[in-house]
Amino acid sequence: MANYYIGVDVGGTTVKLGLFSEEGELQEKWEIPTRTENSGKQILPDIVESIEQKRQEKDGHVSGIGMGVPGPVTDDGVVLKCANLGWGVFSAQNELSTLTGVGNVKIANDANIAALGEMWKGGGRGFDSIVMVTLGTGVGGGIIVRGKILTGSMGAGGEIGHMKVNAEETESCNCGGKGCLEQYTSATGVVRIAMKHLHPGASRLEDSCLEGIKITAKAIFDGAKEGDIYCSEVVEEFGRKLGFGLANVAQAVDPEAFVIGGGVSRAGEIILDVTKKYYNDHVMFALQNKEFRLAELGNDAGIYGAVKMVIG
Amino acid sequence: MANYYIGVDVGGTTVKLGLFSEEGELQEKWEIPTRTENSGKQILPDIVESIEQKRQEKDGHVSGIGMGVPGPVTDDGVVLKCANLGWGVFSAQNELSTLTGVGNVKIANDANIAALGEMWKGGGRGFDSIVMVTLGTGVGGGIIVRGKILTGSMGAGGEIGHMKVNAEETESCNCGGKGCLEQYTSATGVVRIAMKHLHPGASRLEDSCLEGIKITAKAIFDGAKEGDIYCSEVVEEFGRKLGFGLANVAQAVDPEAFVIGGGVSRAGEIILDVTKKYYNDHVMFALQNKEFRLAELGNDAGIYGAVKMVIG
Repeated sequence: MANYYIGVDVGGTTVKLGLFSEEGELQEKWEIPTRTENSGKQILPDIVESIEQKRQEKDGHVSGIGMGVPGPVTDDGVVLKCANLGWGVFSAQNELSTLTGVGNVKIANDANIAALGEMWKGGGRGFDSIVMVTLGTGVGGGIIVRGKILTGSMGAGGEIGHMKVNAEETESCNCGGKGCLEQYTSATGVVRIAMKHLHPGASRLEDSCLEGIKITAKAIFDGAKEGDIYCSEVVEEFGRKLGFGLANVAQAVDPEAFVIGGGVSRAGEIILDVTKKYYNDHVMFALQNKEFRLAELGNDAGIYGAVKMVIG
Repeated sequence: MANYYIGVDVGGTTVKLGLFSEEGELQEKWEIPTRTENSGKQILPDIVESIEQKRQEKDGHVSGIGMGVPGPVTDDGVVLKCANLGWGVFSAQNELSTLTGVGNVKIANDANIAALGEMWKGGGRGFDSIVMVTLGTGVGGGIIVRGKILTGSMGAGGEIGHMKVNAEETESCNCGGKGCLEQYTSATGVVRIAMKHLHPGASRLEDSCLEGIKITAKAIFDGAKEGDIYCSEVVEEFGRKLGFGLANVAQAVDPEAFVIGGGVSRAGEIILDVTKKYYNDHVMFALQNKEFRLAELGNDAGIYGAVKMVIG
């Protein structure tokens, strides 16, 4: 009977699951809906049932389950709160272990497991100390030190989307703070910078606006690649802020490499180039010339990282 | 025959040594000069001889030696460079172990062991994840995560004195960068802020200047305590920058507490109050209300932290 490891990545609308071999190869992946009603009481039982079905189908043995959730989690698997799931404070790790009868169970924050996944099988391969930043609708982060997640004392380690990169900012971030990295480098942040500086006749972006086409981060990076000066300025401002933020992370944790993921990172090498440039401007000499890589696993980073916690 | 542990803190002019009991009590401390000539070749032999003398005097057994040095050190005790000692790259850990015949030897960076020492027996007692910042002539830092030093991939973990806290700064730091925490919060940094903003008739500081009395960080904090408005402004600016920097460290590592040491911290509670105020302004909600403590061990923090590495 084959031994399998399960990686679970719980999101606000779907739960992603992956079945891995003992060698860490992804055999199969699937999704189930996240039932957040009744304070999310059904979420763990649904996951357990889905794992058991897959186990029977494979006629195998489940040797370990790793899981990521969208909120702070302590090193011993206590979820401190997951607003998106309706969860309060409880040991999801103990509960999942009890419900499945599997002893080898680990739970962590979703951004942190994505970082671990990218280090293991993605853009961070070959390194064991990385900082991952995920530039999506918001900006998430995860820090891996010598192969282990830097969880933090209250599960908030790696929350670099809310590092401050501009003490003079007057507009507020979703978190309530002002001048967060997220306000400049998320998909919405890049558009915010662009709209703020848009002036008549400056750029193709203005034409888009006039034609009623929604300006996106993608359009801005595409414009910069094609030489649009105004788009290039927005990209420089993006890089200035991300470079500043990552330099400050490096001053604290001195990683081997940075891995940049999320929707915005699909713009590709231009992201790495502009970030590296401003990173080197801001970081001390001994920390210059770190590696900058694009993430490779996309939405699968979570299930990879989750399983890495129990297979390693 | 009693078992002893030795803590060593190597500085550019003196080496501090401490003899500790098995229970971690400091029994005796002494110093020897640091002989930096000939690329610092004599430094380790001098230390070994001094330890051996003390061992004979006590007729005891040396069970472990921990040592801090002023430069980056990898997790396995390889010194990457110590300009102040004349040292290049070599395994000081292996060499010290070979020279003494003691197997239990650990070497780390001096700012990092000071942080470990303060966590163990000083201002950070009762916590196991702290960030220490030392405000002296320069600004040093050390980060302890779950009782272990965050060394970093190239030994530069915790170098928070060179985090950037002002992207607009035009003057250069000693490190060559611009806008480093050190430029505002070191003893010289505080004076720099004061001198920059000094204007006629504004403050008792001006009188000091006219009388030819050198302005010091101490005078500025004393002035603020006594209600001098101008001194208070300088202290606010100090707190603004230190709060901003420590908030960004917290976003990365989420410690339980901050410990502030070094000469500037002798100003006392005023340092904690003003730093905490701006820290809470800049940090995300989940990271607010961390503990802020003053360091307690002064120049002994290093020997305590050094010994903690081998006694723990």
